[in-house]
Amino acid sequence: MKERYFMDIERITSNQNNRVKEWTKMQSKKGRVKSGEYVIEGWHIVDEAIRHRQTIKQLMVVDESYLGDLPVDDDTEIFLITPEIAKHISSTETPQGVFAVLNTEDYHEQIPDDLKGAWLLLDNIQDPGNIGTMVRTADAAGLNGIVFGKGSADLYNPKVVRSMQGSQFHMKLFTGDILEWMAAFKEAGVKTYGTELNDQAISYYDITPTKQFALIMGNEGNGVDPKILEKTDQNLYIPMNGEAESLNVAVATGILLFKFVK
Amino acid sequence: MKERYFMDIERITSNQNNRVKEWTKMQSKKGRVKSGEYVIEGWHIVDEAIRHRQTIKQLMVVDESYLGDLPVDDDTEIFLITPEIAKHISSTETPQGVFAVLNTEDYHEQIPDDLKGAWLLLDNIQDPGNIGTMVRTADAAGLNGIVFGKGSADLYNPKVVRSMQGSQFHMKLFTGDILEWMAAFKEAGVKTYGTELNDQAISYYDITPTKQFALIMGNEGNGVDPKILEKTDQNLYIPMNGEAESLNVAVATGILLFKFVK
Repeated sequence: MKERYFMDIERITSNQNNRVKEWTKMQSKKGRVKSGEYVIEGWHIVDEAIRHRQTIKQLMVVDESYLGDLPVDDDTEIFLITPEIAKHISSTETPQGVFAVLNTEDYHEQIPDDLKGAWLLLDNIQDPGNIGTMVRTADAAGLNGIVFGKGSADLYNPKVVRSMQGSQFHMKLFTGDILEWMAAFKEAGVKTYGTELNDQAISYYDITPTKQFALIMGNEGNGVDPKILEKTDQNLYIPMNGEAESLNVAVATGILLFKFVK
Repeated sequence: MKERYFMDIERITSNQNNRVKEWTKMQSKKGRVKSGEYVIEGWHIVDEAIRHRQTIKQLMVVDESYLGDLPVDDDTEIFLITPEIAKHISSTETPQGVFAVLNTEDYHEQIPDDLKGAWLLLDNIQDPGNIGTMVRTADAAGLNGIVFGKGSADLYNPKVVRSMQGSQFHMKLFTGDILEWMAAFKEAGVKTYGTELNDQAISYYDITPTKQFALIMGNEGNGVDPKILEKTDQNLYIPMNGEAESLNVAVATGILLFKFVK
């Protein structure tokens, strides 16, 4: 970052400041839809956003010396906030004192023409921590993109953002109707896989590693919608030895994805 | 459950009631250590506790009709509570209205003589949701037991309990010093595996499935303690294709355990 004059940095000391009110509103989906913006926080995620050339609209820090490590563009508005304000706008108990405001434009709605590669589709996944961990896991497995089907928690929910750890900057993220996506995968020759426990499902042991597939994971309690399951190319299950009746959906996603991409 | 006379059931309508205060105190570790008791909540977990013959000291329900589905012993004290009290003692936003008090005696401290089978050791795992998910994953993989090393979050933390989903009733849970446990594994001929990223570590692809192993997973930020890593039989890593720098520790545990037990 170029040196900034002191006058470029706005100091905010009151929770009643309008900026603080705006940032606080971004904690709710309603607020994010209205402003078209969301807040990321913490060194690692803000750094990832900068390194992946996201447009940082605003940067908020509790200490001016932090700015030296955060090479933002000249267009970025910079705010020096108090630790109290940091606590107020944070979604964690012990904020690191580094925040940024980004556009909520990462979501793509149109199914792309090129569907090659590996994909994860989320059918009605509700827990924000699960969603975020699944995005991070898909990123680690080298997937192309993720489709948030209807019912799945909002990508910009602060808990989702926290558990994604910046993986939203590494992959394309879509919202859409999973059945429509499945039709497009069929046309593109990409096989679709659901997860369920029944006679037609095969053990994931039998997956042949591949670079092209679409895996559909379903709701924490009810699994994948039966209407989806009947249209997949193959449904999979994970054999369990113990007494637990099921795996956490993010853990199951990890086991399946890493078997596919091996 | 035998029919109970109406007089057997104590009705509680005030948050100021001493029982309510006791249950609320069990949300903190200090409170649990003092009483030697912890609260479980939700139909599934309470049902698992009953089916696995845990001693249910107290059962609290918001509706008397719930009792028909919960066959507790005659020794169990039963309380009818209001939805407000349920909300007060719950660790969730929308409690199901079914709670039970159990002894915090599941933790074993002595290293058992028979160490055969598969084990998971937790070195300084801090997030309660991660801990609970790891216990549930180990259960699903059919492990014998879990060792909570120093620094790991308390087994009876309400968030741990919620994400374990009753798996604490299916396995033996221990607290102890991981280095002492490793010495015992060595003597018993059970191989120990750590997780790290360095030249000596091998890809988990090369794991030969086995019924006897001890896997050590480490802190979310710092990984496994180097003092532990230098004494393992082998250290493992999970090859990653994408840009994410690491996997969630519970997801990594799932990938590794299901490779071992295949």
